[in-house]
Amino acid sequence: MSNDAYVPHPDRLLPADPAVRDIARELYELEKDQPIVSPHGHVDPRLLLDDEPFRDPTSLFITPDHYVNRLMHSRGVDLADLGVNQGPLDEKASRKAWHLLAEHWHAYAGTPSRYWMEHEFSEVFGLKTVLNPRTADAMYDELAEKLAQPEFRPRALFGQFMIEVMATTDDPVDDLAPHAALAADESFTGQVIPTFRPDKYLEPARADFRELADALGEAAGVDTGTYDGHLEAMRVRRLYFRDHGAVSSDHAHIDPGTARLELEEARRLYTAAREGTIGADEATALRRHLLADQARLASEDGLVMTLHPAVARNHSDAMFEKFGADVGFDIPVAVDFVHHLRPMLNDVGHAENFRTVLFTIDETVFSREIAPLAGVYPSVYAGAPWWFIDSPDAILRFRRAVSETLGYTRTSGFIDDTRAFCSIPARHDMSRRIDATHLAGLVAEHRMRLEDARELVATLPTQQPREVFRLGESA
Amino acid sequence: MSNDAYVPHPDRLLPADPAVRDIARELYELEKDQPIVSPHGHVDPRLLLDDEPFRDPTSLFITPDHYVNRLMHSRGVDLADLGVNQGPLDEKASRKAWHLLAEHWHAYAGTPSRYWMEHEFSEVFGLKTVLNPRTADAMYDELAEKLAQPEFRPRALFGQFMIEVMATTDDPVDDLAPHAALAADESFTGQVIPTFRPDKYLEPARADFRELADALGEAAGVDTGTYDGHLEAMRVRRLYFRDHGAVSSDHAHIDPGTARLELEEARRLYTAAREGTIGADEATALRRHLLADQARLASEDGLVMTLHPAVARNHSDAMFEKFGADVGFDIPVAVDFVHHLRPMLNDVGHAENFRTVLFTIDETVFSREIAPLAGVYPSVYAGAPWWFIDSPDAILRFRRAVSETLGYTRTSGFIDDTRAFCSIPARHDMSRRIDATHLAGLVAEHRMRLEDARELVATLPTQQPREVFRLGESA
Amino acid sequence: MSNDAYVPHPDRLLPADPAVRDIARELYELEKDQPIVSPHGHVDPRLLLDDEPFRDPTSLFITPDHYVNRLMHSRGVDLADLGVNQGPLDEKASRKAWHLLAEHWHAYAGTPSRYWMEHEFSEVFGLKTVLNPRTADAMYDELAEKLAQPEFRPRALFGQFMIEVMATTDDPVDDLAPHAALAADESFTGQVIPTFRPDKYLEPARADFRELADALGEAAGVDTGTYDGHLEAMRVRRLYFRDHGAVSSDHAHIDPGTARLELEEARRLYTAAREGTIGADEATALRRHLLADQARLASEDGLVMTLHPAVARNHSDAMFEKFGADVGFDIPVAVDFVHHLRPMLNDVGHAENFRTVLFTIDETVFSREIAPLAGVYPSVYAGAPWWFIDSPDAILRFRRAVSETLGYTRTSGFIDDTRAFCSIPARHDMSRRIDATHLAGLVAEHRMRLEDARELVATLPTQQPREVFRLGESA
Repeated sequence: MSNDAYVPHPDRLLPADPAVRDIARELYELEKDQPIVSPHGHVDPRLLLDDEPFRDPTSLFITPDHYVNRLMHSRGVDLADLGVNQGPLDEKASRKAWHLLAEHWHAYAGTPSRYWMEHEFSEVFGLKTVLNPRTADAMYDELAEKLAQPEFRPRALFGQFMIEVMATTDDPVDDLAPHAALAADESFTGQVIPTFRPDKYLEPARADFRELADALGEAAGVDTGTYDGHLEAMRVRRLYFRDHGAVSSDHAHIDPGTARLELEEARRLYTAAREGTIGADEATALRRHLLADQARLASEDGLVMTLHPAVARNHSDAMFEKFGADVGFDIPVAVDFVHHLRPMLNDVGHAENFRTVLFTIDETVFSREIAPLAGVYPSVYAGAPWWFIDSPDAILRFRRAVSETLGYTRTSGFIDDTRAFCSIPARHDMSRRIDATHLAGLVAEHRMRLEDARELVATLPTQQPREVFRLGESA
Repeated sequence: MSNDAYVPHPDRLLPADPAVRDIARELYELEKDQPIVSPHGHVDPRLLLDDEPFRDPTSLFITPDHYVNRLMHSRGVDLADLGVNQGPLDEKASRKAWHLLAEHWHAYAGTPSRYWMEHEFSEVFGLKTVLNPRTADAMYDELAEKLAQPEFRPRALFGQFMIEVMATTDDPVDDLAPHAALAADESFTGQVIPTFRPDKYLEPARADFRELADALGEAAGVDTGTYDGHLEAMRVRRLYFRDHGAVSSDHAHIDPGTARLELEEARRLYTAAREGTIGADEATALRRHLLADQARLASEDGLVMTLHPAVARNHSDAMFEKFGADVGFDIPVAVDFVHHLRPMLNDVGHAENFRTVLFTIDETVFSREIAPLAGVYPSVYAGAPWWFIDSPDAILRFRRAVSETLGYTRTSGFIDDTRAFCSIPARHDMSRRIDATHLAGLVAEHRMRLEDARELVATLPTQQPREVFRLGESA
Repeated sequence: MSNDAYVPHPDRLLPADPAVRDIARELYELEKDQPIVSPHGHVDPRLLLDDEPFRDPTSLFITPDHYVNRLMHSRGVDLADLGVNQGPLDEKASRKAWHLLAEHWHAYAGTPSRYWMEHEFSEVFGLKTVLNPRTADAMYDELAEKLAQPEFRPRALFGQFMIEVMATTDDPVDDLAPHAALAADESFTGQVIPTFRPDKYLEPARADFRELADALGEAAGVDTGTYDGHLEAMRVRRLYFRDHGAVSSDHAHIDPGTARLELEEARRLYTAAREGTIGADEATALRRHLLADQARLASEDGLVMTLHPAVARNHSDAMFEKFGADVGFDIPVAVDFVHHLRPMLNDVGHAENFRTVLFTIDETVFSREIAPLAGVYPSVYAGAPWWFIDSPDAILRFRRAVSETLGYTRTSGFIDDTRAFCSIPARHDMSRRIDATHLAGLVAEHRMRLEDARELVATLPTQQPREVFRLGESA
């Protein structure tokens, strides 16, 4: 049927006004073939180590992607029917889930999820139709056939995507064996580096805080029976990560508090946390102290500290009990960086080695807090829009809100933050198109010289994140 | 005088760029003749029951409209001179108020109030001049003459406006006789349905809480001397409303708190509230519990729960004493849906019958809270921009902020929320134009296929609110 | 080198779309030659009294401008190398600072700082090249040469800039001798008026509160040993300022709280503050009471009360110790005008003489709080975007957020708020261009008649701030 034919337009996301679009095209041309640097994400390193074929379209595109599943769930689809928490689906169940996506695909019109997937369908897998109930089976079949071919295995795609560096997100007690094996594997020339993500070890209110601390101690070879031991274990594991290529640590608590306690109070609360006798307010106070410690450690070991705070995780108890974490019920809340980061920035904000990147889903802090902070502290960078707002209009709002205070050079560069490996080039491409659109507008309104915009985009996609995350040119 | 001639431009609110405007025109054409569904508003049902002619232009356009009066008041006009709280104005006073509007009309340039009224002047009443001191008398005369004609009586306009359903907002103790009479009147084929608005009965801090509870009990035939009785009386009255056609309840407290108390604590606080001994914090706690009860009742009776929280009512004591409520001194405050709704959504957020629509004047929650919540909970919808932000730019900001997370299908459809009966078509038309503008932009930037946009607008104005508010096709 | 040639484009900041741009040009033409009224700023009055030549390009453009310095600092430049807190720089150091700016100039692309300075370079000083390391010396030389010429002295520029009125910001104990001398100087026909800025005298938590109170008492000839004396001293000094031409007072505390205390409690806390025994919460309570007193005094003496709240000053202790205040480490925080101003507006919000202008860097209050408040209280005006958001995109956001509620007439007119004398015309010009852009968009979308837009811009730049700040036509 003729109106099922579809490939994304080459000018997608560029401005509609022909004169501005011409400028945007020129800038995008300078960006589009630059290699991908992905300094923060959630792809499993074993994907590349094992290099197994992807199982089927559903397990590649639907089941693990909470962006996709949550909208279908809101429209009445049971997450189980999408494979969430069901183990591997058989072919019939997989195809049924695919049809559910096809039936609801019209409701994704205008969303970045659809935008990314249509980019992937077309540019990665060469499909030329739009997804709908009529085309669903043929598209499933063609995808399944492609996935079985060697050029669609993870390593081949890694090369096709022109990824230079991809960071994963890892538990502090992880031995990082997959990273080590990949680095040792001469047949794989990409760079897959770990990221130190200690969140759960820094939450004294958790019922399993003692067990986690013990595990951390075991991994570090340090007795974590005391606060001092816990701190030392963190230092040891961070260095272990750095030795395995890590360039950053990541932190995502409900607030970015960094107020320090007196040492004796920290010790006392740590012991209470181990004993399960710590109060709620005390647990918050100790968590903030422990985060402040991470900043101190960062000023020693040079790992860039990325902050992703202020999300109320697992908002629905029932869904958490049924399906676990990371299934779409994480809801952002308001954040205050100014008060919460003041202790940390007074402690290490001017230290030579310290660096932090601030991410937010709360757009109110773009112009009010992040731009003013990153526009004066040498150690602070404005992170790219994150999660729900990693989308064309929101990225434009971000650029328009922060650029007038800090230009482009104090921003992090694009961060895909994704579990969906095949969406990485689509996401980076989207970001490049939007930056070209923003800059083209400035040029067209005579707010920036075309040559200044050209100079910016020459370094923005690849060089900027390299510098911010201290990734050497030849790393 | 030639420059007094004026009718609104057919392309008003559509994009200036000719290529994008062409797309917007095509989409708007698909929307503009769809019938109006108005599931939330404040028109008095007796207007349609009595079908009396409107008294005069001032009492139709000025006196009851706080949007209009407040801006004049800020510019130094006494509300009394606009007829507020003055009883019916005589012809001289009415004409004087009309002249005040004409003198200040230039200050309304660019506001939705002026936009709506100019739409009404032109499209409802056929006037062809702009309002100013030169044209004021002639326009007053022409309007007065029209208002006396049968085709400008409320029922005739209801038909001309193509209103299929219009909800009013009603007190829980109201007997809904006008609704019953209208439903029984075979000469009136429109649908005018009540809305259950129990706010004042849920505010234990009110000095008249006991009297209100007693009145509620009397209406329900239930003894409200206890908390259990109060809850039962609410159940009874909600069903009474549902039996009279209601499809929703409406709730507008200073915050949307829904934390439940232990039953014994609720009972104790209820008794204290009746006895006038409840403390301020206790009253807040009980109010939140009572709102959570409304959600439970909604999960039983299926009334859609619309939330309009976070307005500091009657900000000026002096003006409240002089003119009463609803005269323009209600000022929005920041809102937090994520924490406040968590108890309610954990209680009934996955119940089959439960549904809630979140409205806000605090735009910060568009992308941060409302889109993430409505994009995952099947029971949650994003309400259209409300009150001060029911305006072209704000609606565009809303669409741009929420659509990237939840598309169009998880939004409520347009809600006019108005007391100004004649503005209903103008408001719905404005919303349709802005949706066409937003979608045309997505199409022009190749972010949405034209056929997807066409499909959306085919159902957006009429079918979408029908579905969200459970209004049957032939209701 | 050819690509070093550069002058700002005549159409800069106007819309890219040719049809809209034509409208914007027409509106801008009506604005651009109107005289400048600058009712709030930070230029030192002695600059005009002494009329000395500016020392050199660095001390004119770099050293005192924290907008410029902060971005360089974030990029690793030591503030000392820019002359901050170093006393007068010698020619070598001055030229070195200038070269630092040239090296980092590309990072300012798209910022208002660069926009303003390029306007100044071109339109004030006639330079025709872009700043970069190649052109730095020649531009420095040409600027230095110009600065030595009589037509580039402050008074000559004041005339060239067409400044009718310029307000300074002054300490309550200042004798205002420079203002008096300028007013008495028949060779200077401009109007330079003081502004009463009592912030530090209203902060009971300050260690030097007693000394400040004593100094205030001495200046006023009133014993400030008691609260009543302090209040009387404030009354006296405000009148002294008014007698020297002041039309406004300015207030910039961390919050705009105005809750009043009981008189006896105010007296008790004042005494405790003098004795250094006041607690932190008490100091906040007393500060809010003292601000409420300023509002009462304003309702007596008619000084317009401008509020610039919610900035965390001197966020970095280390930088404050090294370089002092106002060097770029002031970071905005969220603000709540609705609750904080309610006591004040209930006290004097309807008083004939009282007037207040609300400024914010927290954009969330544009549509949520400022527009609703200024759109109903006759005494409240919406201030122009301030500080970090005094920039093209943010001004557009402001207009789009507030105009739909209150149009243009309830806004303050542009406020440059600058220490950088030579940037005044650039800033006002930027604002006029953006207003023309905003209005042209409304006209092009048929949301405002062209003649209404013409009428607005005829009074917006000069007449509007005259009226809001009670500056007589011939003052």
